[in-house]
Amino acid sequence: MSVPLKAIVRYDGTDFVGWQVQPGQRTVQGAIEEALEQMAGEPVRVLGAGRTDAGVHALAQVCAFRWPGVAPPDRLRRSLSRMLGPEIRVEAIEAVGETFHPIASAKSKRYGYVFDPAAEPDPLGARYAWTVSSEIDRQRVHELAQRVVGEHDFAGFCASGSSVETTVRTIYSVGLEEGPLSGPGEGSAWRLEFHGNGFLYKMVRNIVGTLIDVTRGQVDEVRLDELLHAPAPYHGFTAPPQGLFLMHVDYD
Amino acid sequence: MSVPLKAIVRYDGTDFVGWQVQPGQRTVQGAIEEALEQMAGEPVRVLGAGRTDAGVHALAQVCAFRWPGVAPPDRLRRSLSRMLGPEIRVEAIEAVGETFHPIASAKSKRYGYVFDPAAEPDPLGARYAWTVSSEIDRQRVHELAQRVVGEHDFAGFCASGSSVETTVRTIYSVGLEEGPLSGPGEGSAWRLEFHGNGFLYKMVRNIVGTLIDVTRGQVDEVRLDELLHAPAPYHGFTAPPQGLFLMHVDYD
Repeated sequence: MSVPLKAIVRYDGTDFVGWQVQPGQRTVQGAIEEALEQMAGEPVRVLGAGRTDAGVHALAQVCAFRWPGVAPPDRLRRSLSRMLGPEIRVEAIEAVGETFHPIASAKSKRYGYVFDPAAEPDPLGARYAWTVSSEIDRQRVHELAQRVVGEHDFAGFCASGSSVETTVRTIYSVGLEEGPLSGPGEGSAWRLEFHGNGFLYKMVRNIVGTLIDVTRGQVDEVRLDELLHAPAPYHGFTAPPQGLFLMHVDYD
Repeated sequence: MSVPLKAIVRYDGTDFVGWQVQPGQRTVQGAIEEALEQMAGEPVRVLGAGRTDAGVHALAQVCAFRWPGVAPPDRLRRSLSRMLGPEIRVEAIEAVGETFHPIASAKSKRYGYVFDPAAEPDPLGARYAWTVSSEIDRQRVHELAQRVVGEHDFAGFCASGSSVETTVRTIYSVGLEEGPLSGPGEGSAWRLEFHGNGFLYKMVRNIVGTLIDVTRGQVDEVRLDELLHAPAPYHGFTAPPQGLFLMHVDYD
């Protein structure tokens, strides 16, 4: 007998090579699977809602696994969180129906990308933001970002190395917000928040990279529209991982 | 010919054993002296305003050194900051008079101590706060902290291992503020800000440790007054280093 569970995890991605298990590498999924195996005495396969890359953080990644026992979810949460150490915190574990699937059941996701407008990276915040010139006009970035809102074939913003059935996704909104998601409590950080029904491999970082290149005048703004009709893979600038946070996965 | 200079530096203390040079150890002072020596081609001795401990951070540590050359301060600042890597940023370098001394010339200092009220440490903020129970009444902590305001012999709050001429110091104020100084941008962090004419070895962390012990009911509140009349060294609980920030050093 085993019970289907859903877990919400928060992590600092700096010292992981990403979410997804890779042989011989330190990954978030791998750390969770190892901890669960130690607790259960048998392998436990974990499936995540979003495959965050090396250096990308999560406020609320969602994952699912089957627990071979009857431990109350909250006791399991505490034990698992303690075993995972300071870089990963298990926010919640709850029972779900047999049909729950962290990707297929997801209605939408929210990603945040944080910018620190400074001449040099901040020792107390550089793990959690991309340092960009204070001359970058954030209103202009936000305005340009509206071009990607809607249903589009995002193949042109997709990194190579992914295999998906379709590269069509819908971005519902891109918002401009003040402040960091973590990192420096002071100062003038700002962020873009992307809400969509799904995101391709490196899609947010590639969109952000192009937006900043256009705002800097290094790329013509027509490139944004061209990329919405271009084939994969993306060949432009990819914004660095440390500014990106998986913020939320919405389910019914 | 050499020029007396004053530098302001910001750093993440997590991966240093503290400010002060210790043979064979990674220290902030040591890193700055090494970088300056490489740039100058001869040893440069650096003197800091506050000897922060392992894990303690600085928003604006002040230090002084003599530069054996005529490089413009801002070019020197950029080169030094670049050499120091991501954990230390040089905020400013300016010429000072021959009599400037970072400790003796200082009028007062400000330290901040950050608390994150959560059941478990936050992966995205635990480097920059002490995780305490959300049941800690911050108003009560602030009220108790008013006992240490004023001129006192703080020997009873001083860790062993320090040698100072006098253990009398004046704390001008202890303020209660919302929010972190770095670390999680969301949530409900709060902090105490200590403004005084000087602070003994581990004095802020020992005061904070006692305040929290009293608030938790683990130590009677009369202990606060007793410690203001006790000899060194302090034997109580020392709050952990990662919540402490040297915020500012005031000069005339």
